[in-house]
Amino acid sequence: MSERIAVVGSGAFGTALAAVIALTGRNSAVLVGRDPSLIEDLRADRLHDAVLPGIPLPEALEFSAEADAIGNAGIVLFAMPSQAQADAARNYGPYLAKDATVVTCAKGIERQTGALLTDMLERELPDHPVGVLSGPGFAADIAKGLPTAMAIAAADMQVAERLAQAVSGRTFRLYASADPIGVQLGGALKNVLAIACGIVEGAGIGDSARAALIARGLAEMSRFIVAKGGHADTARGLSGLGDLVLTATSHQSRNLRFGIALGRGEKVDPSRGELVEGAFAAAVASRLAGELGVEMPITDAVSAIIEGKLGISEAIEQLMTRPITTE
Amino acid sequence: MSERIAVVGSGAFGTALAAVIALTGRNSAVLVGRDPSLIEDLRADRLHDAVLPGIPLPEALEFSAEADAIGNAGIVLFAMPSQAQADAARNYGPYLAKDATVVTCAKGIERQTGALLTDMLERELPDHPVGVLSGPGFAADIAKGLPTAMAIAAADMQVAERLAQAVSGRTFRLYASADPIGVQLGGALKNVLAIACGIVEGAGIGDSARAALIARGLAEMSRFIVAKGGHADTARGLSGLGDLVLTATSHQSRNLRFGIALGRGEKVDPSRGELVEGAFAAAVASRLAGELGVEMPITDAVSAIIEGKLGISEAIEQLMTRPITTE
Repeated sequence: MSERIAVVGSGAFGTALAAVIALTGRNSAVLVGRDPSLIEDLRADRLHDAVLPGIPLPEALEFSAEADAIGNAGIVLFAMPSQAQADAARNYGPYLAKDATVVTCAKGIERQTGALLTDMLERELPDHPVGVLSGPGFAADIAKGLPTAMAIAAADMQVAERLAQAVSGRTFRLYASADPIGVQLGGALKNVLAIACGIVEGAGIGDSARAALIARGLAEMSRFIVAKGGHADTARGLSGLGDLVLTATSHQSRNLRFGIALGRGEKVDPSRGELVEGAFAAAVASRLAGELGVEMPITDAVSAIIEGKLGISEAIEQLMTRPITTE
Repeated sequence: MSERIAVVGSGAFGTALAAVIALTGRNSAVLVGRDPSLIEDLRADRLHDAVLPGIPLPEALEFSAEADAIGNAGIVLFAMPSQAQADAARNYGPYLAKDATVVTCAKGIERQTGALLTDMLERELPDHPVGVLSGPGFAADIAKGLPTAMAIAAADMQVAERLAQAVSGRTFRLYASADPIGVQLGGALKNVLAIACGIVEGAGIGDSARAALIARGLAEMSRFIVAKGGHADTARGLSGLGDLVLTATSHQSRNLRFGIALGRGEKVDPSRGELVEGAFAAAVASRLAGELGVEMPITDAVSAIIEGKLGISEAIEQLMTRPITTE
């Protein structure tokens, strides 16, 4: 069944998503952005060189700078940064088709309130089913048609399965999940653990320590997800472990690079932390974990290092000399 | 309590292990090797430049080329390759102290029989408790005193805990596990998945695909471990996921490099596969999975590619076009 899909947000990820959907040929796709001159250039050039250099965009992809372009789409994907998602819900909400499903593609937590983005969407758009798309997919890999697999979740599994079928293509595979809480928290917490891995790399502590950190970090992520009502299995899937591995081992990741700078002892401008999702998530998760009684020693350490309350070598000493327990 | 610990096998891993144990100062350690001239050089130079270049070995470490040097050790660690472990059990068995515990440090499966190494040790040395040490630890990282965390397992948790306490040092941390099956299978199967990651890297399929492969591979590893009587949690710990991440993302790994060569379409000498633990493990695991009715599509594909029965692009097509299911 052919479906009309709108992607709102003309950054790297939104453009890649719209391109790969248009490529399937099965559905029609429109990319909606706020900047009319950028949209005009994209339509004319079929290239978004600023964010996806050298990757041609398919002829079938439509472009629009008008909010009402989403009006005939059955699925609307929100691909702007997390802090812009609430505004987008308010701005685009009035143009949504009656039964349109809205899917957030940002990682995790709303900055202002600490709420999950799907909770925010349900609050702002109470008449629409909502979902979340997350997992290990770099925009450039998706746009080039390299094989990628991500998770798409909605509280109602039937909604999730319909979304997975509609948005998947030959190279871009979406796996349905009924755990939007776990999918979103995985996407937020993996950024914290990527900063931790960056610290280990920057401080020259070795690949072995980084690998152990990822394994212990996954356990910590699972505990938090379960305490917040999600499923441990989600933590171990594409949106948790998969995205953690991608972010923690690829230098394309801003969170990893931020951690490397910390680990090298470089003076890090506090405002730079503001731009790094994981720095924000570390503080929120560490505070929530305390309230929930969940042990998150790695997240606590990252948060304390960013706030300047803990030195790198102290942190390592602290993590290493925790009592030896069973796994 | 001070303990005498012997490490048999003077390769990189055995030497690193003996060095880090001697460094604690709490226990005395002796490294036992078969080559008297190598042992004499190590004793004189306090360096093993062939395998651990530039890393000084501690003054407290003792060396011996005589099997009877293990006679007063309460714990004996077997650090030779897996295919030499059965011979070592027969050669060194008669010299073991009455209550000595024997720990295998090789990854997984005995080549000749496909048996787990702890099963082989129990068969060869029925009067001794046995255990296994495995996890994410490069010899160089361990020997340099960089922080490393690995798992040590025995069927009897009290034995595992005693081993963890005795062998751990300030930088080298061992976590006790009562699941020797899971620990060993994790160590064997992660090599197969590292070959798969190498294929993805060599074929230029992208970091996103590699991350998805690791997440889906972990699920496959867990299913196999459970079917063989181990625990899924072990797959997700240091010896499974931790070692998988290390092997699949660090170019120090022979398995990863073998996979990269396959992915590039280089003509790979079949005898080279013989030297790569994962190539052997792929064939064994794929066959056993069929018998057990466990789905292991990635392991099956790696095995078929090595045997020349499946092309790289066919394999990717096959893995990507599996029916879309829930995670």
